[in-house]
Amino acid sequence: MTAGFFSSRWVQRPDHVTELDGGLPQGFRAAGVAAGLKAGGALDVGLLVSDGDATTSAARFTRSGVVAAPVQLCRERCDLAHLRAVAVNAGNANAATGVPGFESAGATQIAASRLTGIDPAGVAVGSTGVIGVQLPVDRVLSGLEAARELLRPDGDADFAAAIQTTDAFEKRAALRVALPSGEVRLSAQCKGAGMISPNFATMLCFVQTDAALDPATADLLLGVTVKRSFDRISVDGQLSTNDTAILMCSGASGVTVAPESPDELALGEALDALLRQLALLIVKDGEGSKRVGRVVVRGGDGETVERAARAVANSPLVKAALHGGDPNWGRIAQAVGGVLLDVPVDLDIAIEGVPVCEAGGVRAYDEQALANAVAGTEVEYAIGLNDGEARAETEVFFSDLSHDYVSINADYRT
Amino acid sequence: MTAGFFSSRWVQRPDHVTELDGGLPQGFRAAGVAAGLKAGGALDVGLLVSDGDATTSAARFTRSGVVAAPVQLCRERCDLAHLRAVAVNAGNANAATGVPGFESAGATQIAASRLTGIDPAGVAVGSTGVIGVQLPVDRVLSGLEAARELLRPDGDADFAAAIQTTDAFEKRAALRVALPSGEVRLSAQCKGAGMISPNFATMLCFVQTDAALDPATADLLLGVTVKRSFDRISVDGQLSTNDTAILMCSGASGVTVAPESPDELALGEALDALLRQLALLIVKDGEGSKRVGRVVVRGGDGETVERAARAVANSPLVKAALHGGDPNWGRIAQAVGGVLLDVPVDLDIAIEGVPVCEAGGVRAYDEQALANAVAGTEVEYAIGLNDGEARAETEVFFSDLSHDYVSINADYRT
Repeated sequence: MTAGFFSSRWVQRPDHVTELDGGLPQGFRAAGVAAGLKAGGALDVGLLVSDGDATTSAARFTRSGVVAAPVQLCRERCDLAHLRAVAVNAGNANAATGVPGFESAGATQIAASRLTGIDPAGVAVGSTGVIGVQLPVDRVLSGLEAARELLRPDGDADFAAAIQTTDAFEKRAALRVALPSGEVRLSAQCKGAGMISPNFATMLCFVQTDAALDPATADLLLGVTVKRSFDRISVDGQLSTNDTAILMCSGASGVTVAPESPDELALGEALDALLRQLALLIVKDGEGSKRVGRVVVRGGDGETVERAARAVANSPLVKAALHGGDPNWGRIAQAVGGVLLDVPVDLDIAIEGVPVCEAGGVRAYDEQALANAVAGTEVEYAIGLNDGEARAETEVFFSDLSHDYVSINADYRT
Repeated sequence: MTAGFFSSRWVQRPDHVTELDGGLPQGFRAAGVAAGLKAGGALDVGLLVSDGDATTSAARFTRSGVVAAPVQLCRERCDLAHLRAVAVNAGNANAATGVPGFESAGATQIAASRLTGIDPAGVAVGSTGVIGVQLPVDRVLSGLEAARELLRPDGDADFAAAIQTTDAFEKRAALRVALPSGEVRLSAQCKGAGMISPNFATMLCFVQTDAALDPATADLLLGVTVKRSFDRISVDGQLSTNDTAILMCSGASGVTVAPESPDELALGEALDALLRQLALLIVKDGEGSKRVGRVVVRGGDGETVERAARAVANSPLVKAALHGGDPNWGRIAQAVGGVLLDVPVDLDIAIEGVPVCEAGGVRAYDEQALANAVAGTEVEYAIGLNDGEARAETEVFFSDLSHDYVSINADYRT
C-alpha cells in the first residue's frame, strides 16, 4: 500500500508529509469482519472507534435526491461535529428500502452505541452495495459484535477491506505530518470504483487524525478538500445514493491545530494531497478503466467552465476515445458545444500540451506525435473558451469507457 | 423500405396515411452521387430541388455552441421560409474548420445555385462526417455537377444513401396522406446512428410534401413535430454540431393546407408519425444498440420531469442494464436522484407495467416475470416523482450501451 501512494503526476506529496506502512493515528481503533453479506467469506462489516471524549468531526454526504437510509440517519440523528464511531457494511447499500431500511440503519446505530458505550448521536453508519434489497440487519449486528472484540490500532486494513465492493485495489493511506507545532498522524480508508458501481452504490471515505481540531476547523478543512478531490472526479457521471466522507480528530497527539494558523495550513495541505490522491485512485479503478483523463477548462464564468468540464468528462465519446488512445479532439469540441446552447463559442483545445484547435478552427499538428502523447496512463486536455473577460478555471478527473465497463454493467446478472 | 416503416409499438400509423414504395412528392427531384468523400465509391453528395417558385419551407438546427459551417451558413445566408434546394455531403462534417470551412460552405451554396438557377438564399447546405478536417470542396462541387444531371422524381433513395455515414440501415419513407381537401404526398430522408457517430457528426432529416403551406404553417408544423421526435431521443446524450431538419412544401398537388384547418391537423398527424418513427429508427440504429428504451416521467414540474427523463436516458448504467436485459431498477432510482439535488424524492418505478418501487421503497415483484418482460427489443420505464401537485409528463427514447458502442468509438482509429 505505502510504496508510492502518491502515484499520480497531478498530486504532489507535500514535503512535510511522510508515507507510513499503515496503522491508525493515536486514539483510534478499528476492525473488519466477515458477516455473510458478501459471498465467499470476504470482510463486509467494519467498526471504527475513537477512544477520547474530546473527539471532533465533520462529514459530507451525497447531494442525491434519492438518499440511502444510512445517509438519512446520519443527517437526522447524528451530532456530525462529535462523531466518535463509524459502523459500516458492504454488500448492501440499504438504499430505496423505505421505512424498513431506515429502521435497519437505526438498529445498526443503536447496536454500535451499546457495544462501544458511545452515545447514539456519536455513531455514524454507512452502507455500500446492492440497491433496492432490504439490509440483512441481523448479520450486520452479529458482525458488529465480532468486530468490537477485534478493535485494534492497526485494524485499518481490515476496516478498509470491509467497505470494498467492486474495487480492484485497496484505497488506503497512513501518513505522518510534520506541523509547525508538532507531529501528527493522518490516515484514510476509502472505497469506490465508480460514482456507482455495478448494481452497487458508493464512494465512502473515512479519515482520522490525532491532531486536535475544533469542529468548525474540521468542517472547513474537510469541506475545502472534498471540493478539490471527490467533487472533481467522474467515472460515469452517476451520483451515488450513499456517498459519505467523515473526518474524525481524536486530539490524542496533543498537538492542537488552531484556526487560521500555520498548523491549519500545513494539515490542510496534507489532507488535500491525501484526498486528491484517493480520488484519483477511484478514477483509476473506474470499472474497466485503462487511462485517467484530466480536463482543465479556462476562460468563462464559473458556472460555464464547470458545465463544459463536466460535459467533456462525462461524454461517452470522449471517454471511449481516451480508452482507445485516440486523440480525437473533434469530440471535445462537440461535447463542449453540446452544453453551451445557443451561444457560439470559439474553442482553443490542447492535448498533452499540443495545440490542435485554435479559435474554433483546426490547427496543423503532428498526428503521430499526438498519438504517442495520449498513449500513456494519464492524459490532459486543456480547453480555452475565449469568453471575453471571464477568467474562471476548473478541472475534472475522469476514467475512460471500456469494454469491461459494459461487461461489468450489462452482463452482471446474465 | 416500405413494408413496416411504422415498426415501433410507440408510433401509430394514422388511418389516413398509406405507405408507398418510394418516390418524392410532386414538384421534387433528387439525386445522389459518389464524389470521393467516402472510401470505396459510396454515394456521398446529394442534391434535392423543388421546381416551383411557390415553394415554402421551414428549418431547425442544432442548438450546440460549436456549430458546423453549413449550419452557420444556412442561418446567416438563407431565406429559411423559401428554401428550394438542398446540397449535402457525407464523409466530412465541415465542423471546427474555421473561416476556410465557412468559405467552403459558401462555395457549395453558390455552385448549387448556379447549377439549379435558384437564388443562393434558396439553397440550403448540409454536411455530415468527420469533425476538424477541411472539406475537400472541389470534390463536392464536381459531385453537385454530376448530381444535377441525374435529378429525378424517384431520386430519393440515392439522395438518402448520399447522406448516410455509419447508419446500419436506411431511414427513408414515402407516404400518401388523405387530407380532407385532397390527397398529398409526404416523404423524408434521414440519417443518424447517434447524436454524434464515431468521429462523425449528425442527424440530418429532409422532408418534402406537395401540399401548399404558407411559411408560418410549415414552421409551426415542423417545430411541433421536431419537438416530439428528434428532440426526444438520445443515443449517447451527445448533441451534434450539424443537426439539421428541413421541411419543403412544393404546393404541386394543388391542395392547400390552411392554418388551423382540419387539413393542417391531418397533415400534422402524418408528419408527427413520420418524424417519430424516423427518430425511433435513429435510436434503434444507435451504435451497437440492441434494445430501445422509453422512459416516461410524471408528477413534477416541466423542468424537473425533463431533467429526470434525460438523466435516465443518458445514464450509462441504465443503458448497460438495458443492453444486458437486466431489470435493474436501482439504477433508475440512482439516476433520477443524481439530478434532483438536495431534494429528497420518493419515487414510484414500474418497468413494462410491473411496479418495482413504490414511494421510494422496494415492492415485492416476480423477478423472473420482470426479466422476461425486459428481454424484448423495446422496454418501457414509468417513473412517478410524487412531487406534490405538479403534474407534468415527458418521455425520452434511448438506445442501450453495448460492447459495439465502445468498439466503434474506442477502436475506431487504432
